[in-house]
Amino acid sequence: MSKGLPKRSEDYSLWYNELVKRADLAENSAVRGCMVIKPYGFSIWEKMQAELDRMFKETGHTNAYFPLFIPKSYLSKEASHVEGFAKECAVVTHYRLKNAEDGSGVIVDPEAKLEEELIVRPTSETVIWSTYKNWIQSYRDLPLLINQWANVVRWEMRTRLFLRTAEFLWQEGHTAHATAEEAKAETLQMMQVYAQFAEEFMALPVIRGRKTENERFAGADDTLCIEAMMQDGKALQAGTSHFLGQNFAKAFDVKFATKEGGLDYVWGTSWGVSTRLMGALIMAHSDDNGLVLPPKLAPNQVVIVPIYRGEAELEAISEKAKEIMMALRSKGISVKFDDRDTHKPGWKFAEYELKGVPVRIAMGPRDLENGTIEIARRDTLTKETFQLSEMPVEEKISSLLEEIQKSIFEKALSFRKEMTTEVNSWEEFQQVLDQKGGFVSAHWDGTSETEDKIKELTKATIRCIPLDRKEESGACVFSGKPSEGRVYFAKAY
Amino acid sequence: MSKGLPKRSEDYSLWYNELVKRADLAENSAVRGCMVIKPYGFSIWEKMQAELDRMFKETGHTNAYFPLFIPKSYLSKEASHVEGFAKECAVVTHYRLKNAEDGSGVIVDPEAKLEEELIVRPTSETVIWSTYKNWIQSYRDLPLLINQWANVVRWEMRTRLFLRTAEFLWQEGHTAHATAEEAKAETLQMMQVYAQFAEEFMALPVIRGRKTENERFAGADDTLCIEAMMQDGKALQAGTSHFLGQNFAKAFDVKFATKEGGLDYVWGTSWGVSTRLMGALIMAHSDDNGLVLPPKLAPNQVVIVPIYRGEAELEAISEKAKEIMMALRSKGISVKFDDRDTHKPGWKFAEYELKGVPVRIAMGPRDLENGTIEIARRDTLTKETFQLSEMPVEEKISSLLEEIQKSIFEKALSFRKEMTTEVNSWEEFQQVLDQKGGFVSAHWDGTSETEDKIKELTKATIRCIPLDRKEESGACVFSGKPSEGRVYFAKAY
Ligand SMILES: [Zn+2]
Ligand SMILES: [Zn+2]
Repeated sequence: MSKGLPKRSEDYSLWYNELVKRADLAENSAVRGCMVIKPYGFSIWEKMQAELDRMFKETGHTNAYFPLFIPKSYLSKEASHVEGFAKECAVVTHYRLKNAEDGSGVIVDPEAKLEEELIVRPTSETVIWSTYKNWIQSYRDLPLLINQWANVVRWEMRTRLFLRTAEFLWQEGHTAHATAEEAKAETLQMMQVYAQFAEEFMALPVIRGRKTENERFAGADDTLCIEAMMQDGKALQAGTSHFLGQNFAKAFDVKFATKEGGLDYVWGTSWGVSTRLMGALIMAHSDDNGLVLPPKLAPNQVVIVPIYRGEAELEAISEKAKEIMMALRSKGISVKFDDRDTHKPGWKFAEYELKGVPVRIAMGPRDLENGTIEIARRDTLTKETFQLSEMPVEEKISSLLEEIQKSIFEKALSFRKEMTTEVNSWEEFQQVLDQKGGFVSAHWDGTSETEDKIKELTKATIRCIPLDRKEESGACVFSGKPSEGRVYFAKAY
Repeated sequence: MSKGLPKRSEDYSLWYNELVKRADLAENSAVRGCMVIKPYGFSIWEKMQAELDRMFKETGHTNAYFPLFIPKSYLSKEASHVEGFAKECAVVTHYRLKNAEDGSGVIVDPEAKLEEELIVRPTSETVIWSTYKNWIQSYRDLPLLINQWANVVRWEMRTRLFLRTAEFLWQEGHTAHATAEEAKAETLQMMQVYAQFAEEFMALPVIRGRKTENERFAGADDTLCIEAMMQDGKALQAGTSHFLGQNFAKAFDVKFATKEGGLDYVWGTSWGVSTRLMGALIMAHSDDNGLVLPPKLAPNQVVIVPIYRGEAELEAISEKAKEIMMALRSKGISVKFDDRDTHKPGWKFAEYELKGVPVRIAMGPRDLENGTIEIARRDTLTKETFQLSEMPVEEKISSLLEEIQKSIFEKALSFRKEMTTEVNSWEEFQQVLDQKGGFVSAHWDGTSETEDKIKELTKATIRCIPLDRKEESGACVFSGKPSEGRVYFAKAY
């Protein structure tokens, strides 16, 4: 099955596309830029959703649902928002089809034209703040901490499965607060939730940072983000959390009676992660044999493959395999027993490698005799023979899964460290970007002008101003003007 | 809070609308026909989703996700499907907005017109079967058992919160099988899953039946359904499961290599339930004081309200209340302690009645002295004083919740029985429909002609041919022609 998967070193982009398709994660649909998320891919996304949803609820948020359609005029209400989002939208202009008179099929009924066109939501700030206007009267109604799981549409011209699609799935949190401080604390908290999710569950180390004004969300006063490094040396923005100031409150006239008896505009935040995380997960850890999944997000953590000739052998092995399955499940480990007789063990091994199952157990007649099993790790591709009498198998596997989770993270972390270079001259900057890639840590003079110029010349953008950067005065790597500290540049997805 | 909720007996429809809004379940949005599902309403929907999703997975289904947009031409591929679904659709014709030259806002960019218009999915058979064509080659690829949770849009002219909205949330199962028998068994199984969910979780008794040809899903060879009775005597279709025959396989050319070496079209099913179930849940059980929720779907099963004067009393009560909360939570009971000092106990009582919390516990200083609590049931509005020494409180409440769940079901069941009338003449038919409503069980000659005529004259439709009906020959209540058995007529939502 994995035969012919292109090599990362030869064509990273082709490797990614083929892997996504062959591992049954997603595929392109007949509608340009819209993907089909296949069952195996969706089951990974469901695991992500479940953990994120739990984390949102633990931080006091509840889910709700707002309309798919946004009246066109709403987009214009917040000045910078419309600039950012009105460009590439799916526009609904009619609400009826009818049979063509020549019998050739159905046509749009010209009489069913909408008075005001509707936009398929590219993000929901406008429709949500127009609703919040009715929900918020007093400080007693605050904070309002709401999240929604939804599909959104942005008409991208160049699409890529999971990474950039016209329609994608995401969650968008939208909160309202009585004070700027509280809203800023929420913005920071949710960025930290994303970072924790990425590191603990996706085994993906991320840089916690702040976007420059250029890269800020359209309508936000401040955008925090988490940035990850992919194996090809390109950065990927994995989640953003925005402090909206009072911008949307003013655009939609959302005021509240303060505790002190005054009247003030509400402070807002919004934050989101999307199916793009699937792209990050795939690109960060996988290898030329296929997917590598961190155990905490693997739909099947363990697969057991029997190696046998004839019914009698299979029966004996099955009995033992079922014992092992029961033991593993009692520890909450998900396990699949693949006793299909339609495929050879070698085919199955390749298949589960392609699908990224973290642990493979193989059992043959000799194992049965010796009281052993063969345990193979997907991440390192190493094997060991395990003596079942040594310790309870569920403990063995459970600690192995923990080790794998940790090891995948450590590997990604050392890769990122290796791919992060401090540079101090413009020559060095260009050379590192060209020859090595990765994050380039450099001084910057803080102006959009320099940022734009660097992007134009190198295609690298400022990924973020790291939150934990040390204040260190220096000279901008491009302009030579004074700088207060280093920022991360990179080419990015 | 519940003050002024209209009475069911005076204006059932107004009562429903007001209840949905005041209990924070949903509200209309600025976009015609699209609703906002508010946090409390959404938390009930989430509980429904979780149970249904579990039931789907237990019957072997997996989730996936297919595109929101359907090329217009796809709709035309299945002849009867286009008739049923091409009428009232949201049509995307453009993919870009631009700034108006006069600075008046944004306008649709006429240069960004799509070559082929896209329809926002009203249901996904077409886009899914066009995908299945690539997924199915051989009998080894079958059965394919996939479900999707999604939003869909049908441009309804007269909308009603949850019951009929332009956009709604639902799940749609789409399965593919090697034989007609297997597909029929799946159709039946999923109808039974819906019936079991309705009865066990929603406490909603349903009739399991088959739709007449007239009422069948557009593109199906057979439609099974579950039908429920609302308190105003109108029926509500709560779920449908369709046997699609080979219709979509033929429309999208989905063939498979059979075990025997032949080539045949695949057999299909589809099945769905939607946020309409929320409407059914609300209308079936609620009363003039507000919502009545079955414990299994209540976001909070128990609320504890302290009755106190001053800090010292509150502290003493809180201590005991927290003990009780811990005990209840240890049994998996969800419980909220409402110690807000901004609202009086009476206000809270009314609020939780409006919101349908199944059990309310009140505790005052005298309770503390006596070792008692006051337990109030939402469904019967009865109260009792419970001596805490009598038995562990978690056992008391746990069995009370079970009793409430059962009692709500029993009440709805006897109501439905009461509202089901066998009639044997046309006069009786009309009289019962006019004066009593409910299900009218009558002989029917099996023709669409008679069915149409009855609908025209009385607005009643055949809700279904019950699956468990006894074969009994008789005379059609309208035409007098021979009939093989009774069917259920009713006016319906
Ligand atoms: Zn960043
Ligand atoms: Zn029916």
